[in-house]
Amino acid sequence: MIPRPLLALAIGALLVDPARSAAPGSGLDADDLAIAAALRDGTLASNPSYALVEDLTTTVGPRLAGTPADHRAVRWAEARFKALGYDRVWTQEVTFPYWRRGHESGAIVGAHAQPLMLTTLGGSVGTGGRPIETEVVMFPDLDALKAAPDGSLAGKIAFIDRRMERLRDGAGYGPVVGARSDGASEAARKGAVALLIRSVGTSRNRFAHTGQMRYAEGVPKIPAAALSTPDADQIARLLARGETVRVRLDLAAVEAGIGHSWNVFGEVTGREKPDEVVVIGGHLDSWDQGTGALDDGAGVAITMAAGAAIAKAPRRPARTVRVIAWASEENGLMGARQYAASVGAGWAAHQVAAESDFGAGRIYALRAGASPEAWPVVEAIGTVLAPLGIATESSGGGPGPDVGPLVALGVPWAQLAQDGTDYFDYHHTPNDTLDKIDPAALDQQVAAYAAFAWLAAETDIDFGQAPVPPAGGR
Amino acid sequence: MIPRPLLALAIGALLVDPARSAAPGSGLDADDLAIAAALRDGTLASNPSYALVEDLTTTVGPRLAGTPADHRAVRWAEARFKALGYDRVWTQEVTFPYWRRGHESGAIVGAHAQPLMLTTLGGSVGTGGRPIETEVVMFPDLDALKAAPDGSLAGKIAFIDRRMERLRDGAGYGPVVGARSDGASEAARKGAVALLIRSVGTSRNRFAHTGQMRYAEGVPKIPAAALSTPDADQIARLLARGETVRVRLDLAAVEAGIGHSWNVFGEVTGREKPDEVVVIGGHLDSWDQGTGALDDGAGVAITMAAGAAIAKAPRRPARTVRVIAWASEENGLMGARQYAASVGAGWAAHQVAAESDFGAGRIYALRAGASPEAWPVVEAIGTVLAPLGIATESSGGGPGPDVGPLVALGVPWAQLAQDGTDYFDYHHTPNDTLDKIDPAALDQQVAAYAAFAWLAAETDIDFGQAPVPPAGGR
Repeated sequence: MIPRPLLALAIGALLVDPARSAAPGSGLDADDLAIAAALRDGTLASNPSYALVEDLTTTVGPRLAGTPADHRAVRWAEARFKALGYDRVWTQEVTFPYWRRGHESGAIVGAHAQPLMLTTLGGSVGTGGRPIETEVVMFPDLDALKAAPDGSLAGKIAFIDRRMERLRDGAGYGPVVGARSDGASEAARKGAVALLIRSVGTSRNRFAHTGQMRYAEGVPKIPAAALSTPDADQIARLLARGETVRVRLDLAAVEAGIGHSWNVFGEVTGREKPDEVVVIGGHLDSWDQGTGALDDGAGVAITMAAGAAIAKAPRRPARTVRVIAWASEENGLMGARQYAASVGAGWAAHQVAAESDFGAGRIYALRAGASPEAWPVVEAIGTVLAPLGIATESSGGGPGPDVGPLVALGVPWAQLAQDGTDYFDYHHTPNDTLDKIDPAALDQQVAAYAAFAWLAAETDIDFGQAPVPPAGGR
Repeated sequence: MIPRPLLALAIGALLVDPARSAAPGSGLDADDLAIAAALRDGTLASNPSYALVEDLTTTVGPRLAGTPADHRAVRWAEARFKALGYDRVWTQEVTFPYWRRGHESGAIVGAHAQPLMLTTLGGSVGTGGRPIETEVVMFPDLDALKAAPDGSLAGKIAFIDRRMERLRDGAGYGPVVGARSDGASEAARKGAVALLIRSVGTSRNRFAHTGQMRYAEGVPKIPAAALSTPDADQIARLLARGETVRVRLDLAAVEAGIGHSWNVFGEVTGREKPDEVVVIGGHLDSWDQGTGALDDGAGVAITMAAGAAIAKAPRRPARTVRVIAWASEENGLMGARQYAASVGAGWAAHQVAAESDFGAGRIYALRAGASPEAWPVVEAIGTVLAPLGIATESSGGGPGPDVGPLVALGVPWAQLAQDGTDYFDYHHTPNDTLDKIDPAALDQQVAAYAAFAWLAAETDIDFGQAPVPPAGGR
């Protein structure tokens, strides 16, 4: 992320058209800012975002990529884009390994037998049609597991007991999620027959947190599951007493061939430079246990409603605003990768891209990764967002997951950073349901996305290239 | 509940022994109050209550009456009473219908298919080895269901959608729980093939709330289940759109003959009147999904620790303190009924009885149902409890569930009323686990029970007879 470039600002001020003096160097005049402010205030007063996420979760519900429900969601998104007055609506097919959870259960066995609340990690193999029953060995974190001697876990279950920290920006996730992503193969390298992890989440509620894992090449694939916080506590307490803990796992997960889904696009076509594109969006798929209200029905609804407001504005912006309901994010950004691959050399037409994929908490910061020349645009956008309680920050942050593959090509990104303090209480659990959404917070986000996208599409300043490739997906 | 009897107070003052002038009419002198205060302060500083509930939930876990885990809990309670220095420890066998949950699942089917989080109500029949799949008809409450025309629900599922109010004293439970207890038979009378209810609980978390139901004589037994709050919302939203909602229920619950368990008793024998008994306790069984930390591991641990403190006091109280870990409370106060039946005419030896069965929130009030002559005793006890933030209240309240059958015989009751504001967020759900307990709140309760039981056992005033039979169990 580039710090605020004072030099570029100064040059911008010298070159500025007097009619655009409202925000020197931004390529935006007072009229542009006024339209953005009107979009902001209009969507605060009225917008369909809550109705959209209510409709998606109620009529579709969970929509694991490739399932019939996911396909219903695709049809839902197409129909809603059309009904909301978008100029163009289309889809793009995406394929991916089609994983299904099936039955899952676990229990402590023996003298202190009791059932465990757990959930299979996405992409994990099952236990092969019959339960695994063996001893558990606990590690405080992934590094400790990596440090275990080879073969020391032969025939055993590795249990990684690292807790996640609660932070507004979700920064507690990164240090912990490696156990979920890579723990199974690390455990298998030591001879383990299964992996258990403490859920990557911040809640004490008895829900286990799923999410995608991956297998390393050349290492046996062993099943992997997450325990709810109280169940991880339970095993940790027994082990702390010096007890031998034996666990039975019965997981029926399978990878069943190739799944299909579709990215869904709704576009408000630019009036002057229709081939230059500002991308906003959220992902349409969800995990299979909650109804994907926070992750990411909210993001789809926020950006769909923001684009709809722009479509109803007094004039189209100069560039095109493309709202993307991304396919198959949860199992590896499959829709985003497919889109990035398909645009190829056309990536440069993407001025800037942003994704709403961090729940439904209010936006508190605007950040961006763009060329120095674009910084006055970001600052101008920030002046319109400021009344929403949003600060413009000149460092930190990063692109949303589905924006990553575009950013890897060189596309600039923006982040409308949401308050995620409570996000990991619900994320990837059965408890991600509509009731967790505050409609007023959703309205604030629609206001921010509408103003942001309109101004980013209206300026005649180029956003340039993103200086750094994105971090991994979420 | 008798209002404070001014006349009795006046008579008490006239008859009082000067040595007992610390609390006129209470039969307690300054030494007695000092010992109670020392018990209070000593248990605040140190007591085994948290360790006990930690041990019970960790080494036993869920303990549905009659299961092997329940039997482990009985052995656990016997061993702990002995280790804690009780003078006598014994058990009493209890039998009851042995119900088991088995597999349970449900889903909305059709165009808006999605799984439902539900749980079979205790005592319910299953769906007979194959799923029921039919239309849902919603009622705002049990009375509305009762008002439906006969036969109007033929072949359908009745859904009672009443919400529970959050209140400190749990008073929101009573008006709602009738739908759980009696809804199935009322629905069957109208021709319904199954009952669904909105969970009797206050949480938005996606846990369904189980609890005992009962069938009326001469009405077909139909299966009954509770939906989590978000799932009840989901069905209500679809119905509010005018959609026909069809649900598939697959419940494998069975009543499998006669179950056995045991009331477990630990006694601190009185030094002067060992045959006069003050009863405190909690129930040892739990529902099968949580680990019964709040319901009622906490109550067992609090009263077990309080009795242990009395056993270690400088002198035994005049009367006996009997701590009872009640069997099979959840499926109908079966241990309490058995005990009351077995004491028969000996009920009058029970001076006063109290149960801790409302979670682990701090005690805020002392209430009692006893003769007017005993009110000065209650007031004297109140002076010792007051520093714990406990007010003595001369009206309201009622006995704990397992005390009910004794009170029905005429035994006076006391209530150390706990703050239950959050209790129904966890009660009867998988989320009733150890982490929901605040050890400091537990200590406050041990202090209150120890002081209460010691003073009630030390006074030479009789508690008389309870003026009214108890309300139903919880």
